Amino acid sequence: MKLRNDRVLRALNRQPVDVTPVWMMRQAGRYLPEYRATRKRAGGFMDLCRNPQLACEVALQPLERYAFDAAILFSDILTIPDAMGQGLYFTPGEGPRFRKTIRSMADVEALPELDPASDLGYVMDAVALIRRELDGRVPLIGFSGSPWTLAVYMIEGSGSKDFRRAKQFIYNDPEAGHLLLRKLADAVTRYLNEQIRAGAQIVQVFDTWGGILSTSAWREFSLAYMRQIVQGLRKENEGRPVPCILFTKQGGLWLEEIAASGCQCAGLDWTIDIGQARSRIGSQVALQGNMDPAVLYASPEAIRKEVGAILRSFGPGPGHVFNLGHGITPEVDPDHVAVFVDAVHELSAKQRD
Amino acid sequence: MKLRNDRVLRALNRQPVDVTPVWMMRQAGRYLPEYRATRKRAGGFMDLCRNPQLACEVALQPLERYAFDAAILFSDILTIPDAMGQGLYFTPGEGPRFRKTIRSMADVEALPELDPASDLGYVMDAVALIRRELDGRVPLIGFSGSPWTLAVYMIEGSGSKDFRRAKQFIYNDPEAGHLLLRKLADAVTRYLNEQIRAGAQIVQVFDTWGGILSTSAWREFSLAYMRQIVQGLRKENEGRPVPCILFTKQGGLWLEEIAASGCQCAGLDWTIDIGQARSRIGSQVALQGNMDPAVLYASPEAIRKEVGAILRSFGPGPGHVFNLGHGITPEVDPDHVAVFVDAVHELSAKQRD
Repeated sequence: MKLRNDRVLRALNRQPVDVTPVWMMRQAGRYLPEYRATRKRAGGFMDLCRNPQLACEVALQPLERYAFDAAILFSDILTIPDAMGQGLYFTPGEGPRFRKTIRSMADVEALPELDPASDLGYVMDAVALIRRELDGRVPLIGFSGSPWTLAVYMIEGSGSKDFRRAKQFIYNDPEAGHLLLRKLADAVTRYLNEQIRAGAQIVQVFDTWGGILSTSAWREFSLAYMRQIVQGLRKENEGRPVPCILFTKQGGLWLEEIAASGCQCAGLDWTIDIGQARSRIGSQVALQGNMDPAVLYASPEAIRKEVGAILRSFGPGPGHVFNLGHGITPEVDPDHVAVFVDAVHELSAKQRD
Repeated sequence: MKLRNDRVLRALNRQPVDVTPVWMMRQAGRYLPEYRATRKRAGGFMDLCRNPQLACEVALQPLERYAFDAAILFSDILTIPDAMGQGLYFTPGEGPRFRKTIRSMADVEALPELDPASDLGYVMDAVALIRRELDGRVPLIGFSGSPWTLAVYMIEGSGSKDFRRAKQFIYNDPEAGHLLLRKLADAVTRYLNEQIRAGAQIVQVFDTWGGILSTSAWREFSLAYMRQIVQGLRKENEGRPVPCILFTKQGGLWLEEIAASGCQCAGLDWTIDIGQARSRIGSQVALQGNMDPAVLYASPEAIRKEVGAILRSFGPGPGHVFNLGHGITPEVDPDHVAVFVDAVHELSAKQRD
């Protein structure tokens, strides 16, 4: 099928584009009234994820309103541990929780091997359906949490302020930690390959909690397993390369190592200057990012100014997929998102004149 | 008065020392049962800060148990906005809050000028008393929050998940933001100079929330004002230089700019490798840090291993003050702190053999 807007794919392959492409982490989300309405119909958040029709509906909603250059699968980063029997659930305003936690080598050894095609069939159905409904408008991004990020939630049983249990686990029993991460890396690799088979044209690994580690612990317990995933991914599908984006939040110190992992693109949070990131690794991989999501709370003028500053900092030439530096937050005014998206296209077109 | 243990001062001046000196952010804190007992006698947390006798008592408690090479003033980073009339208070488990918030240029203009000697007399009394009771055992560190960190709490009125109000304020009304930060930088400079006059032999600026900003916003709204403070500080007291430590949490990307601020030492959080930090700026300033506080939850063996890894990463030669990468958390076993402190001294002595 012909892809009518391939800007994101071109930018990820560091090929020239007419304007800088843009999408937004959590673009199908609570800031949109139509999302909140669909979610209400679905029941809870996981009911929405598990319903391919409704998941498809919310994935397409932001494309109706805004000129986004990509769609992203609607799902959760924690589907894998849920499918392993850990019992994912959400409590209002509290973030994800698990009914079971991993606290010993025996817990790790008891984790079943995952068959994503059957165990996470609802995700594959959603991928296939969104892809069909997109009908070549823009490419579809699949995703998963990084092994370390999954491990953190599985050990803690929830989010955490200081992540003491997850850190205690890897410092006190590195062997059990590595077995857990190896199992998760295998599962994530198979899961993302199955998403690609079902129609995902790009995949992103969210290393949401990589940045809470020391450099050496991140290398040993997060990067090593993301590298393993990147190496195990299908490189091509439908005759097109399938780029992989690694996004380590608070990973600005480690960009050289991310770029050397074999991925095609490094996702940047908003704390790093994208021009400095480009001068460090922009000849090796594309860059995705990186406006502070909080700027969307500011005035339209301030949003346009910040978009312009980021485009200027990146400078001319290919290899930039514009995005926020983290997911959009629920209280943002939907009109401000239009200002953001249009500013990226308009100001980057001017930059090319 | 003769200082019997001047290791920290020597390390901050990048002079040789027999063993690597160590102290710990929040060393006088809730992990100590004797601290909890004194605090109970005082009433609330701010009652403890405002009582020089009790503040002195808790500041000295960790020195009775452990071989720390420095004492730190017992106080809060937010005393300045409190003295400006913002009404600081604490609710259990919630962190600091202010009764008033700053939301407009008019609010900023209404802030009074501070006379630290009288408005914060209780802090100066505590400094003088702790200094007298230390009687030359180890040097005393004074401190304040950075202007940006104070501004965040004053605008938000509390801690925050996404700091939207503080960011909205500086993006939408940079002029009001800069006036607020200028007023705070003036106040912090006078406050730290008054602490030095009262007996503080080292000062540290806690830029706790610098790391939530983009690089350009941090430069404009945080670093610029810390530089102003460093330039306005008394450089000497009692015939000795008074070193200044700048600690930007999540500031690893910005070390070169911190080192160029005029400070004598950069505080490091645990995410950066201290050897890499040293190769970037260790010829300009001393380095303080940087063990992940969560390692104190691990076994004594794991703690010693991590201390050893950090000492090896820093390598031989002067300029290292060992510390955690952030404050110690309340649930840590006090025995683990002894393991930590003794490991720093023992393993660094071996490294010198």
